[in-house]
Amino acid sequence: MNILLTGFEPFSELDSNPTEHIVKTINEEAVAGKTIFGKVLPVDFQLAGAMLTDYMKEYNPDAVVLLGLAAGRNRITPERIAINCMDGDQDNEGNQYTDKKIIAGGPDAYFSTLPIRKITQSLQHHSIPSSISNTAGTYVCNQVMYQAAHFIKLHKLEIPSGFIHMPAHHDLAVSRPSLPSWSLDDLLKATRIILEEI
Amino acid sequence: MNILLTGFEPFSELDSNPTEHIVKTINEEAVAGKTIFGKVLPVDFQLAGAMLTDYMKEYNPDAVVLLGLAAGRNRITPERIAINCMDGDQDNEGNQYTDKKIIAGGPDAYFSTLPIRKITQSLQHHSIPSSISNTAGTYVCNQVMYQAAHFIKLHKLEIPSGFIHMPAHHDLAVSRPSLPSWSLDDLLKATRIILEEI
Amino acid sequence: MNILLTGFEPFSELDSNPTEHIVKTINEEAVAGKTIFGKVLPVDFQLAGAMLTDYMKEYNPDAVVLLGLAAGRNRITPERIAINCMDGDQDNEGNQYTDKKIIAGGPDAYFSTLPIRKITQSLQHHSIPSSISNTAGTYVCNQVMYQAAHFIKLHKLEIPSGFIHMPAHHDLAVSRPSLPSWSLDDLLKATRIILEEI
Amino acid sequence: MNILLTGFEPFSELDSNPTEHIVKTINEEAVAGKTIFGKVLPVDFQLAGAMLTDYMKEYNPDAVVLLGLAAGRNRITPERIAINCMDGDQDNEGNQYTDKKIIAGGPDAYFSTLPIRKITQSLQHHSIPSSISNTAGTYVCNQVMYQAAHFIKLHKLEIPSGFIHMPAHHDLAVSRPSLPSWSLDDLLKATRIILEEI
Repeated sequence: MNILLTGFEPFSELDSNPTEHIVKTINEEAVAGKTIFGKVLPVDFQLAGAMLTDYMKEYNPDAVVLLGLAAGRNRITPERIAINCMDGDQDNEGNQYTDKKIIAGGPDAYFSTLPIRKITQSLQHHSIPSSISNTAGTYVCNQVMYQAAHFIKLHKLEIPSGFIHMPAHHDLAVSRPSLPSWSLDDLLKATRIILEEI
Repeated sequence: MNILLTGFEPFSELDSNPTEHIVKTINEEAVAGKTIFGKVLPVDFQLAGAMLTDYMKEYNPDAVVLLGLAAGRNRITPERIAINCMDGDQDNEGNQYTDKKIIAGGPDAYFSTLPIRKITQSLQHHSIPSSISNTAGTYVCNQVMYQAAHFIKLHKLEIPSGFIHMPAHHDLAVSRPSLPSWSLDDLLKATRIILEEI
Repeated sequence: MNILLTGFEPFSELDSNPTEHIVKTINEEAVAGKTIFGKVLPVDFQLAGAMLTDYMKEYNPDAVVLLGLAAGRNRITPERIAINCMDGDQDNEGNQYTDKKIIAGGPDAYFSTLPIRKITQSLQHHSIPSSISNTAGTYVCNQVMYQAAHFIKLHKLEIPSGFIHMPAHHDLAVSRPSLPSWSLDDLLKATRIILEEI
Repeated sequence: MNILLTGFEPFSELDSNPTEHIVKTINEEAVAGKTIFGKVLPVDFQLAGAMLTDYMKEYNPDAVVLLGLAAGRNRITPERIAINCMDGDQDNEGNQYTDKKIIAGGPDAYFSTLPIRKITQSLQHHSIPSSISNTAGTYVCNQVMYQAAHFIKLHKLEIPSGFIHMPAHHDLAVSRPSLPSWSLDDLLKATRIILEEI
């Protein structure tokens, strides 16, 4: 069994991204008998989706697990749903949208098909705070979650996909007084538990 | 050099306290050539101060480092000052005060005499979020910080004392969605760095 | 032009609900030439949707504006989307669901068809903090938003509907230290501005 | 009976300050038979204290009530104590201090001598959220609170003085998504209730 695991490059005023570190560390690792292909996506509304679907074609994974940083959240939050909307801040290339569809004519939203309840329960069982989130936002994180689900539907693939947001790591929080954070060790440990549940 | 390091038992609706675990783990450890005496104080306005000053007489420490849990804070916060006031929730024995002096006729407040700026900088240097706090509250944490300083002044000791608040550990946060938390490993690592700076 | 405006009864441990007060106050008021029919819905997964669609049949409104309390939010938040999911706390009748569909076989989500961007901008123009929210949660608020949209689609109505969350009013915040709140006057003023934009 | 009521000019990146508006509005008003002298202080570590004590000499007030903005707080917070410390961000003139005494050789802190418990209870009785705060910070707010108390002690005056922090007003929150805010009407109403209790 192969799992495609993606993270993102740094974005906005943050100079590092824990999910980049996580997917580079776990790349080509075997977790519970599964081979993990870890890839870094650009924070770019134009390119991120195409790069993701290229990786899906290249690796033909049995599951797609997309990771991203949710600065401000204090726990691991598997996302319940991706919505057909791009809105908010500029991406790294200066693209910015207001209330714009990701896919014209696409459905309003796609539920995650990862076992999000089981993931959250397993993390909690290991004393790692986690809860299901009902919004992945309207930035590039939500966009790639939507595009993975849309690609799977169009191509009638029978594989699960979904997005999981991570808290900031300590490096980002040192100079940001209100930002909750975890150590990278905790984030790596949580990611491996997640991959066991897929 | 001997350091008296105290933590607290669980209190309120929280069924564990990371500072109890920390001081029991580090008790009698040698950190940077210093011997640490780790003791657990009761969350009891009547007894905590007397027990603390008894330990100060028994161990004759070269420094007093008091630890406590600040549920809701997202980083290590050395306290700047203790104030002559008891107020707020019931302690574990049902004692409760409103706007009451800890020491009748005592000064309004005592500054910490620990190197709080150096501690914060050293933690940050190790990628551990930390900032100075300007209030230790009006609960038992503030009370023991005030009483340590008052005891040192009355007995003309020349030793530093102060209080350092810790975030919750993950166990407490699993069932409390808005509570930031760290792993116990991170809290232990931070405590040892603090002790090196004393 | 008629607008159906709903609020909710109190729920959970909160003993009042500002949206109940708002809809009772504005009921049968004329706002910018529109007649407002203000109704209170029960916090009951079983009954709220049926009662709402009964009101839609009875009043045949030109627009449906659903209000609810979002305790913890600090501003007026028009919701972007309702999702096909019930989850979370018990309602007032003891009904409780985990990850359950509102409508079996229904679409994953429905976007609001209210002019949410224009509403937010108009409120801001009047110095009233407002922003679009990307989640109405998975409680009865989200449920009635979903059911209004589903009813409109099934019956091929050509009317807009959507949900707008309100901050707590001051009464609820007096005894809850971390709860942001506004005066009822501010909430009423905001509601009338919203109704002008429909 | 005369009351000196001060607020502050705007500071940091905030382009208005509700306490400036409040003290200008209430200036020379009679509240419950007391005459209020409302004055605006500069956010300047060098000048604020001297200007305040000049006003105290000029108006010879029976009480000194200092107001300031606490952006981020969600309620009216009478401060319990001022501490002998300047620290933190630059003031409006570029003065910046780290862990520096306000008055060399002054006491570590001064308690408020306003009836802070009665003020908080009276506000709550009027459905206005309020609680006592245990830190006025280490910026110019804390500094003028400390300096008023120190001046009163040096000159053996028998008048109460203290500081009360206010939430942001709505204008500041429109463009700042996480900032709680109240209307200026609510802030003015609260101030008049406070003045009745002095």
